[in-house]
Amino acid sequence: MQQADLMLKGGVVLTMDPAYRVYAPGAVVIQGRDIIAVGPLADIASRFAATQTLECAEQVIMPGLINTHTHMPMSLLRGLADDLRLDVWLYGYILPVEKQFVNPEFCYLGTLLSCAEMIRGGVTCYADMYYFEEEVAWATVEAGMRAVCGETVIKFPTPDAPSYDESLTYCRDFLRNWHGHELIVAAPAPHSVYMCTPEILQATTELAREFDVPLLIHVSETADEVEHWVNQTSMPPLRWLEAQGVLEAKVLAAHCVHLNHEELHILRKHNVGVAHNPTSNLKLASGFAPVAGMLENGVHVGLGTDGCASNNNLDLFEEMHLSALISKAVTRDPVMVPARQALAMATISGAKALHLDHLIGSLEAGKRADIAIVDLNSLHNVPRFETTGLNIYSQLVYAAQSSDVRHVIINGRVVMHDRQLLTLDAGSIIQQARQIGEDVNQFFIQREQSLLEKVAAIGGLEREESYEVQVKARIQNKELVVQALQRSDIAIVKESVREQYDTYFFFSDPDWGMLRHREDLVREADGSISPIYTLTAMGPTKEAEYGNAIVLTRSRLTAPADRTLRFYREYFRPREERQVNKKRWRYRIRYHGVDMAVNIDEIIQPAREGWYLEIKSRTWSSRDAERKAALISELLHILGVAPENLVRQDYVDFAASLEERRA
Amino acid sequence: MQQADLMLKGGVVLTMDPAYRVYAPGAVVIQGRDIIAVGPLADIASRFAATQTLECAEQVIMPGLINTHTHMPMSLLRGLADDLRLDVWLYGYILPVEKQFVNPEFCYLGTLLSCAEMIRGGVTCYADMYYFEEEVAWATVEAGMRAVCGETVIKFPTPDAPSYDESLTYCRDFLRNWHGHELIVAAPAPHSVYMCTPEILQATTELAREFDVPLLIHVSETADEVEHWVNQTSMPPLRWLEAQGVLEAKVLAAHCVHLNHEELHILRKHNVGVAHNPTSNLKLASGFAPVAGMLENGVHVGLGTDGCASNNNLDLFEEMHLSALISKAVTRDPVMVPARQALAMATISGAKALHLDHLIGSLEAGKRADIAIVDLNSLHNVPRFETTGLNIYSQLVYAAQSSDVRHVIINGRVVMHDRQLLTLDAGSIIQQARQIGEDVNQFFIQREQSLLEKVAAIGGLEREESYEVQVKARIQNKELVVQALQRSDIAIVKESVREQYDTYFFFSDPDWGMLRHREDLVREADGSISPIYTLTAMGPTKEAEYGNAIVLTRSRLTAPADRTLRFYREYFRPREERQVNKKRWRYRIRYHGVDMAVNIDEIIQPAREGWYLEIKSRTWSSRDAERKAALISELLHILGVAPENLVRQDYVDFAASLEERRA
Repeated sequence: MQQADLMLKGGVVLTMDPAYRVYAPGAVVIQGRDIIAVGPLADIASRFAATQTLECAEQVIMPGLINTHTHMPMSLLRGLADDLRLDVWLYGYILPVEKQFVNPEFCYLGTLLSCAEMIRGGVTCYADMYYFEEEVAWATVEAGMRAVCGETVIKFPTPDAPSYDESLTYCRDFLRNWHGHELIVAAPAPHSVYMCTPEILQATTELAREFDVPLLIHVSETADEVEHWVNQTSMPPLRWLEAQGVLEAKVLAAHCVHLNHEELHILRKHNVGVAHNPTSNLKLASGFAPVAGMLENGVHVGLGTDGCASNNNLDLFEEMHLSALISKAVTRDPVMVPARQALAMATISGAKALHLDHLIGSLEAGKRADIAIVDLNSLHNVPRFETTGLNIYSQLVYAAQSSDVRHVIINGRVVMHDRQLLTLDAGSIIQQARQIGEDVNQFFIQREQSLLEKVAAIGGLEREESYEVQVKARIQNKELVVQALQRSDIAIVKESVREQYDTYFFFSDPDWGMLRHREDLVREADGSISPIYTLTAMGPTKEAEYGNAIVLTRSRLTAPADRTLRFYREYFRPREERQVNKKRWRYRIRYHGVDMAVNIDEIIQPAREGWYLEIKSRTWSSRDAERKAALISELLHILGVAPENLVRQDYVDFAASLEERRA
Repeated sequence: MQQADLMLKGGVVLTMDPAYRVYAPGAVVIQGRDIIAVGPLADIASRFAATQTLECAEQVIMPGLINTHTHMPMSLLRGLADDLRLDVWLYGYILPVEKQFVNPEFCYLGTLLSCAEMIRGGVTCYADMYYFEEEVAWATVEAGMRAVCGETVIKFPTPDAPSYDESLTYCRDFLRNWHGHELIVAAPAPHSVYMCTPEILQATTELAREFDVPLLIHVSETADEVEHWVNQTSMPPLRWLEAQGVLEAKVLAAHCVHLNHEELHILRKHNVGVAHNPTSNLKLASGFAPVAGMLENGVHVGLGTDGCASNNNLDLFEEMHLSALISKAVTRDPVMVPARQALAMATISGAKALHLDHLIGSLEAGKRADIAIVDLNSLHNVPRFETTGLNIYSQLVYAAQSSDVRHVIINGRVVMHDRQLLTLDAGSIIQQARQIGEDVNQFFIQREQSLLEKVAAIGGLEREESYEVQVKARIQNKELVVQALQRSDIAIVKESVREQYDTYFFFSDPDWGMLRHREDLVREADGSISPIYTLTAMGPTKEAEYGNAIVLTRSRLTAPADRTLRFYREYFRPREERQVNKKRWRYRIRYHGVDMAVNIDEIIQPAREGWYLEIKSRTWSSRDAERKAALISELLHILGVAPENLVRQDYVDFAASLEERRA
């Protein structure tokens, strides 16, 4: 009798070895970190005696699941913002929070949380791409998990490096520090073709080859990305990476949603592993990865959850389930990606994608003991059939849940027993994670309390608070007004004609006033049009009134509007929206030493008869405002405006809300 | 203080009422079967005192989930056969098992199993379509669940009725017996347009209207179904149902995967509820239902799991998750079907689809107390944000799992407390379900042990075991042989020319021999071609040899092959496959009182020079066989066959396997 440390006894042993051997009842023998025997229970029991035995009758003993793509610390941002378009999600929520909160402690705690969740779901190894990977690696060691930790390098400043030079230095140090570690493979992770320079890709490729570790990269996640890259280089991203020599490294490419036929062969030719992320690809509407085609071409495809902020969990059972379901619907063929293939993606094929199949991915003597034991004796898992020889796989892929995982062993060590984590303190992690959640909430509550902070959060505040003295009046004859301006005491400094498309957002909180998005098409002297886009927040009330309908208004902020109106609509989520389009003849004048704007406006939408006159002047003090109000009064007289033609409404008051217009 | 039976205290109360009110912390007060108050905790606590209190701090109190389409007893067939095309799944597995096993006890037990699984996953109400609905209803009452039980009516015999007349009688009795029941709505369920006659649809519509209950039906699940129906009636199914007056009933239409634009309006116009089944539609590759379009048109869409044999669980959390994810990818728009809408489909919108929203679907005073309480304080659910006002919905839809459901209340009764079922004995149900599983396994093991049983299982065995004495030879000149047949002692009874396309299946078990699928295109006198399809199983060895290469062969069975070759390939799953195509000149002759076949064959694939001659005669005893062998020897001489031209191989031996040809 050979003595061993641990024997798993009596369950269905799914080896996922090249012959897909199944032993029922079977047994697995573990010595130190390694599996030393796998086989039928009777045979194993007659040859081995173990110090410790784990009874696994009625359970499935299978290779630990492998999550080939995630961003570990982002579990702390789970559910921060969902159902949003990528730009709103990224610029409105993720980037501001990452900028504020991502530091070594955040990454350490986030990794602990992710490890805990994954172990509870039968995951024993993962591949990460994030920042502060030193902390990610240390937390992983604390959890007792196996990982490929990819230090992300991009051409912009990151939370852990002010420039990409420093990022590369961090990366090299990180690779050196962890080289040869029992559980951790430290790897370079150039983010993607579009976030890197050719130099970054070259340097990280060299690093990966020097240390003989995988290189992790996002490839062709969205159709836009591919289109831009083809426009720029006339090659799709993977083809371009091949041309750059990057595929000489052991590459793990995440996503690969939009590949052409040639690229499927490139994957195979260079033994590029693919991390397929079904939930993320669906949730972000990236598309349907050609998984069936990849598998047919012999590409090593693993499954990934992507980060928690776009999933929102790290559940490989869900990804198996989805990967098997989606391919059927997309190909209109219910036999595509059968259960065993889905399970293979989550185990041995994932190990191949990570270039770690010599160590993990199947239950075979000589491999590391990374094992999940799953209870299939619960209500949603019974009955059990043996009608096709494949039933056990479909039980796991179509019926089982991550909560059916009972025990988990990594590198020979039991890290979960009977659903109790042995390496981590779940209660403490949950408590700390919730505290971070509270801090982030406070950050947002503060931001959401103020329109100004919300605008500032997405960058580019041009000017805060300015005051204007202004008046508005109806006029019947535009030409008469223009003629009246031709006086010796009025100097026309500048004039222009412009079309202005204004969209006003109204909010539930009346204190927010309204936000105006203006597309200002200025017609230049040469006939060309140069657009100016601005955001202006306006107070809900007039600040003062001076007679003759002359009012003091406060514009609380102005910012260049460098994103689309659609973005602002989804980011600010107005309660109501109104539109005013007008043609404006704009005169900058000086009158008695005061700069003023005289606008003659034709309101196109909502259509109004005749023209409107506006006279405006910026002001800084109440004395100054009073003086300017008096001058504006004089001008009204000069320009022939009768008191009954003064207008107290704003243009936006003419416009019906979208809802009103629909009704 | 008003006295009440039960108070749920202190969690986040998601009401799903028309204003989507959320109370955090909130409380729900229950008196008897009804909710009598919902609101902020402080307010409720000051007004009500309850006999029993359930502390729900850190938990979400929400309406019980509604499964709008399932086949309850089929949970006993969970994982029986997966990853198969519909016909193989249905004719190869489901129908043979249903025929053998479905009886009242099966339906009762299957319903208990499904109820237990669903309660554990927070489901409080479901809509079923199956047989023996009396038993389904009784088991549901035992579980304390709410249900719309649809008794299925089709134009063929069913497990519970030998004809549709009797099925309609059963249905009427069922509706009468359960009319007005507190938990059960007994309903007619004409299966689909293609499985019913117009008379069945008319009768069930009248029943539904007479008893004022919903009518349940499958609509436009597959593209084929729609195409066939349009070809037959020039209307798509839903339009046709409208024309038949069926939509005058309160209809719940399952699937609706393939609808045109007009049909979206028909749904709305007739207030037809839709049961959307994302997992089933993907798994069976039916397609992507136009859910976003339905919701946009104000159609009441609920979620369904479909039966366990095509899912393979009854997990509404998975369906919520999928429904939100899929619509995004299909529309390429990540804001489609946001989490709150997915949760609405699983609750209030599902209640509307079932025409039961006056009773269930939201937490409002006056509605029945059907409630799920979900723990969001686990590793995969933290942290928790309040950044968008919608975070709680995305936690439930994107992160949570059915195993997070902690307590369930139906009709005011606590049916699960702290994950313990109070109305059902899970252990006993599991044990009984596994016993049924074993019986089904035995049935299949027996079937799979014999090719004959496998053929018999899909119907139409024509003939078992027959013996033939036969010989084969190469010939150089076909015309010489034909001339030689023109002798006075040979009577040509019948002659024909045919093209034969033979596919041979070889199996891993050598005892199975080989199975031949023959497409026999017989050219008639008028030049037309009538195809004959047969399956023939042949023994692995010759039974006897008589010299001159004359052998006795055994064909073990012959059956008409009324399904496609593709079906047989997927059903029998051969290890290897070979093809032989030939042109055959076939002569039925009588020689010395013995019926024989003389075939002159030109082997087209694999291409062979010249022709082959076959002489065959059926035989019944070894004496008879010897005599016929002697006569065949004489014929060989008459037809001028030299001994060196005798052929001992079968045609199939000429053919390479598909694998060999690829290599």
